[in-house]
Amino acid sequence: MIAELVVEATDGAARTGVLHLARGQVATPAFMPVATRGTVRAVPTHDVAALRAPSGARFEVLLANTYHLMLRPGASTVAELGGLGDFSGWPGPMLTDSGGYQVFSLGPDVSDDGAEFASTYDGTRVLLTPELAVRTQELLGADVQMVLDVCPALPAPPEVLRRAVETTEAWARRALGARTRIHDQSMFGIVQGGVDPDLRREAAERTVALGFDGYALGGLSVGESRDEMLPAIEAAVAVLPVDRPRYLMGVGDPVSMVEAVARGVDLFDCVLPTRLARHGTLLTDAGRLNIRRAEFARDRGPIEDGCGCPTCSRYERGYLRHLVSVDEQSAATLCSLHNLWWVLRLVERIRSAVAAGTLDGLRRTIAAAWAPGGPSPSG
Amino acid sequence: MIAELVVEATDGAARTGVLHLARGQVATPAFMPVATRGTVRAVPTHDVAALRAPSGARFEVLLANTYHLMLRPGASTVAELGGLGDFSGWPGPMLTDSGGYQVFSLGPDVSDDGAEFASTYDGTRVLLTPELAVRTQELLGADVQMVLDVCPALPAPPEVLRRAVETTEAWARRALGARTRIHDQSMFGIVQGGVDPDLRREAAERTVALGFDGYALGGLSVGESRDEMLPAIEAAVAVLPVDRPRYLMGVGDPVSMVEAVARGVDLFDCVLPTRLARHGTLLTDAGRLNIRRAEFARDRGPIEDGCGCPTCSRYERGYLRHLVSVDEQSAATLCSLHNLWWVLRLVERIRSAVAAGTLDGLRRTIAAAWAPGGPSPSG
Repeated sequence: MIAELVVEATDGAARTGVLHLARGQVATPAFMPVATRGTVRAVPTHDVAALRAPSGARFEVLLANTYHLMLRPGASTVAELGGLGDFSGWPGPMLTDSGGYQVFSLGPDVSDDGAEFASTYDGTRVLLTPELAVRTQELLGADVQMVLDVCPALPAPPEVLRRAVETTEAWARRALGARTRIHDQSMFGIVQGGVDPDLRREAAERTVALGFDGYALGGLSVGESRDEMLPAIEAAVAVLPVDRPRYLMGVGDPVSMVEAVARGVDLFDCVLPTRLARHGTLLTDAGRLNIRRAEFARDRGPIEDGCGCPTCSRYERGYLRHLVSVDEQSAATLCSLHNLWWVLRLVERIRSAVAAGTLDGLRRTIAAAWAPGGPSPSG
Repeated sequence: MIAELVVEATDGAARTGVLHLARGQVATPAFMPVATRGTVRAVPTHDVAALRAPSGARFEVLLANTYHLMLRPGASTVAELGGLGDFSGWPGPMLTDSGGYQVFSLGPDVSDDGAEFASTYDGTRVLLTPELAVRTQELLGADVQMVLDVCPALPAPPEVLRRAVETTEAWARRALGARTRIHDQSMFGIVQGGVDPDLRREAAERTVALGFDGYALGGLSVGESRDEMLPAIEAAVAVLPVDRPRYLMGVGDPVSMVEAVARGVDLFDCVLPTRLARHGTLLTDAGRLNIRRAEFARDRGPIEDGCGCPTCSRYERGYLRHLVSVDEQSAATLCSLHNLWWVLRLVERIRSAVAAGTLDGLRRTIAAAWAPGGPSPSG
């Protein structure tokens, strides 16, 4: 299914609009919370779905990890349970990655055929091929599936990066050939190429030539600096079609998101907000706040003044610090709700700024709060 | 503060009514969820507060553990944070135990003065005296505080049980003398005496003679059978005043609750519903259901047909089994919400049955579902 992106406003290369998927629409730019194994860690699905920004904006698309779900409970089990939407209780569109990112983090045996790895659950050896990634994701049944790609860690030698582009293209071609759910599931291609703008541009052109419903930028935020990452994004986006979504995989820190939007990116996903939350690190307009710090022990204020999240409207810093200190599970839930809400509001601010033509101002605001040495209340 | 219980209806020795506490009223019989360290395990406070039985009934009083809170974050910290209500975000009445139960489970050095134990957090040695238990609970600031008592595990020799009654009485007298928050905090005495009905009756008489706002039965469900426990309850309740609440400490299994209500008990607390939930054991009208069982892997039904809990209205057995199997934190939350809701509905059914004079029928129904060899779908 074509994942059409209707652009409603632009501000330089940035755009805001509506992405049309099988199960619903998504206001872009959008952030996809990560429901690794069919649930966002520490937050039941219905609590993620209930989050509302001040404007009423909510998370409209959820990401789940094929790697984990294909091993537990298995894609056919998810299919028998009605597919990912019924399974997880998420009421709107979903996207699955191909499993490649997790597999490549395990140091697999890569051949032209695919990537062979040992399951982290029971050690079983599995050969993940482009065709198996398609078959698995069709069983999972998200609105969007991703092709299997080769994702090298950075820095990597030029020949490794070129080889990743070549293999990714070959696998993408096989994924398109293996696909059967044309009418109710979109398929996004993935652009590799490391941080070499020329290779990124070439990879983007070759991916576009294959013809996908949307385009992702993979292999970024894997060891390189932001200053290396942004030109690579710019080079790739320049050759991507205007009417298709552009998805920067695995990136979710505030500065990178707003800078990527300024370069034309529409979609993000990242475990950062929930992973930080589980360690007591909270996102605020003034930067990160580590709730474990002793100074918060008797603090009766909310995490952030004026925050409308389910946590800040009910609980004080002193209580949250206590819950984190004694490792209560509720701490992870309450901190995750805050961080997700903060990101929800950030993308809402980004959409508004693009529509108003004021994105540069927001970029400066975010940079000031989140830069090293900025006014962040903690490191 | 007097904890007045206004009885509205009786059915034999059972009664239903309204308990008046500083921060609100409690329909009785009532079950108090256990917020050990200021939160019910795995369930944020506001989610416990939001649970509603079909009639609209909700949990009206929450229990917190003095032992844990005096060590982390410390009672004075809780006091500075506004007391337990503000601290935890619980909008209604609360009760704190004295810390004695946890301390006695650690095998403390008991003298006439108090019980000395090593903190499970950092090994610090602490002498918990009746006066410290009062001072600590006054800082925590719940609606109800409990006296420090001596709680022997059963079976215990008669001389140990008698000695526990004597020391508990002496400590209760000291607690009454140490008390300062007379006007906004109730104090309950605790009746010990093991499973010897004569000693229980004597202990109850001696506790009543001291004059408390309410009366608890302690030292039960600590190793004895239900057939041993119930006559002890009956003997004690027979001499307790009608207009004061009777609280059976630490008991929350369905059969014991309904049988204790039939003998005149009003209040219960127990970690059972949430502890079972964290292991994937769910409470249903047909008994326990272990969601880990393989037969549920592709089961699209709710935990229990017709259940109106937040979990059953949104999620299927197959999904919950998956979450439990891969040890996702959301599993504990969703299973705990179901079990708490089931207990909420059970006490609602108990109140209705007492009011209607049909408690014997409910006792038979509960016994049939929960007896060993009953129709329980799992062990």
